[in-house]
Amino acid sequence: MKITNILGTNDFIESLRGKKANFILALCNAKTYEIQGITQAGIPSKIHLTPTLDSEFVCTGQIRSLKNIATTPKGVPSPALITRAVHILKPFSSIELLNLGLEVLPKIEYFKIHDFDLQASKAINTNAEIKAFEVFQKALDFGKNYEACASEDKYIILAESVPSGTTSAKASALALDYEVKNLFSSSFKEEKNDIKNQTIKEALKHINKDMDIFEKLSCVSDNMLIFYAGFILGLSSKEHKIILAGGTQMACVLLIINSIMNTMQGEFNSKNIALCTTKWILEDKNSDIKKLLEMCDFKINAYASDFDFSNSTHKALKMYDEGEAKEGVGAGASLCYATINNIKQKDIIEQIESFLSL
Amino acid sequence: MKITNILGTNDFIESLRGKKANFILALCNAKTYEIQGITQAGIPSKIHLTPTLDSEFVCTGQIRSLKNIATTPKGVPSPALITRAVHILKPFSSIELLNLGLEVLPKIEYFKIHDFDLQASKAINTNAEIKAFEVFQKALDFGKNYEACASEDKYIILAESVPSGTTSAKASALALDYEVKNLFSSSFKEEKNDIKNQTIKEALKHINKDMDIFEKLSCVSDNMLIFYAGFILGLSSKEHKIILAGGTQMACVLLIINSIMNTMQGEFNSKNIALCTTKWILEDKNSDIKKLLEMCDFKINAYASDFDFSNSTHKALKMYDEGEAKEGVGAGASLCYATINNIKQKDIIEQIESFLSL
Repeated sequence: MKITNILGTNDFIESLRGKKANFILALCNAKTYEIQGITQAGIPSKIHLTPTLDSEFVCTGQIRSLKNIATTPKGVPSPALITRAVHILKPFSSIELLNLGLEVLPKIEYFKIHDFDLQASKAINTNAEIKAFEVFQKALDFGKNYEACASEDKYIILAESVPSGTTSAKASALALDYEVKNLFSSSFKEEKNDIKNQTIKEALKHINKDMDIFEKLSCVSDNMLIFYAGFILGLSSKEHKIILAGGTQMACVLLIINSIMNTMQGEFNSKNIALCTTKWILEDKNSDIKKLLEMCDFKINAYASDFDFSNSTHKALKMYDEGEAKEGVGAGASLCYATINNIKQKDIIEQIESFLSL
Repeated sequence: MKITNILGTNDFIESLRGKKANFILALCNAKTYEIQGITQAGIPSKIHLTPTLDSEFVCTGQIRSLKNIATTPKGVPSPALITRAVHILKPFSSIELLNLGLEVLPKIEYFKIHDFDLQASKAINTNAEIKAFEVFQKALDFGKNYEACASEDKYIILAESVPSGTTSAKASALALDYEVKNLFSSSFKEEKNDIKNQTIKEALKHINKDMDIFEKLSCVSDNMLIFYAGFILGLSSKEHKIILAGGTQMACVLLIINSIMNTMQGEFNSKNIALCTTKWILEDKNSDIKKLLEMCDFKINAYASDFDFSNSTHKALKMYDEGEAKEGVGAGASLCYATINNIKQKDIIEQIESFLSL
């Protein structure tokens, strides 16, 4: 497997060879997922369970809060399978969960689940009503006090499972005046109807120019985006190396940080951060991860794994290569982590196929 | 390789993926082994050397205090080979030895050998004469001060090599009034004669109802059982994760802890402890590890590796699958450790076979 540089050189990712990774998975529900046709990240009528099931599967290899793993209506299995496969082949040094407003808690013991007393946010077309500054402040404090990888031989992977998350990400970027019209990804191959853009249009009606950043985000964003912006700023006071595990949603986290820094006229040291994603995001014709990242005033290293399912015979997995699912649950970063730990594509595919034959 | 849940869910063992293990091996001689026909864990007339040789082999890959590795009269090699094979394929972060009354010290440098100034105990049929409370107290202090895995990314594996240990374990459980008649394992496939039960019967004559727990254990137990009970209680004041590596002897350690807690009316936090053993123990028709563990008033996670020698062509190894040897020297826990570190059954078998062809 190879890693493609989207932006920057390969030095950052190479410097992490031989080091240990703490895998942090942010989980939240934003009721935007209830809008008919907005996402295909999960089982219809059970989409609120997607982050719960994803976290159960990554940690234990089992789905406990439902009989079968979250699949899209077309039957594409969750990218959680990719992350779990990598964890089996080369375990992360720990997996920690962030409960950023789950409707159903995962049935997991022994793994750290950090709780921040946050609720699932409302749908963005009716005003999400997030206490954005409070979420940001909690995250900032959490980042400043986060000690688990104070040592030099560790880095942190920040992943997410947020159904309808690309919708709130695009709305957030637009609310903060970035021109991102055709730059955001989706869980669909093609967005056949305009439900997503219609939802975003309605969402943006709730904001106005007099609002500050956090007031705007309160209306149109989700807890994960705001939390990770705060968490990263909190962490950046130390020398933690961070991988943002995802595609356009994680790019939005960086755009939020960029807006905050511009408003505060602060300096953000982006040297210790990189974004890692999948080939499916990098090659997506309906979004542009590179352009999104270039909108930041700071430089950022970004990478994509070249992993795909071309050597798999499993139909459901092939659909990833057709663009029906692209990223999530830290799949892209897990694949980059696998690469710098010399895990073979063949072994990952075999491991994932073994999950589906259970 | 897979791990079977004997009791509890797989969360405990899953949470240890990617973490490092300190392997601690308790070694002692109890003169019970001198009773003709009581054990087949070693070479007749050299059985006192078994823990010495096991520790030499696990640490160095060499047998130094005798020409050949300890084998049973039928020629079954010690489970130390399994532990050594796993250590080669995925090294424990350290191996430490506990000298709990060895007749012959292992010829090993550079490895930590903790000494507690304990002597080999006498045969239980003539009264073992162990200073049980003193052993317990030393272990408790050792546990309280044990610092090697203060960090969250480590756990401790507690293993043992004690010839005739299942005899003193069964006697200890009976002395503490547990009804364990057909629940204890043995180094034999079938106990053809009644030497073991006769020995236990004679041992139990030395105790009476007026004795406290430690007075009873003084007569019929062995240093390892008492020491590990104290060590675990000492460790439990911290958040150390512990794997009890063994079968029915380790279950007896838990029963001793249970009796102490019931007498002291104390609460024991068993959350951070699990027992890990072999398939040969789990499937043994002459013992019942699950029932033994269920006699504890606290809940305990317990696992068995599904490793066996069905894919080996080596006759001596095949005898494990026939029940001639089942567990010891941390074999079962080593196999579970191998599983969560993605070591393949095939590679372990190959490694073990290479030891036998030397």
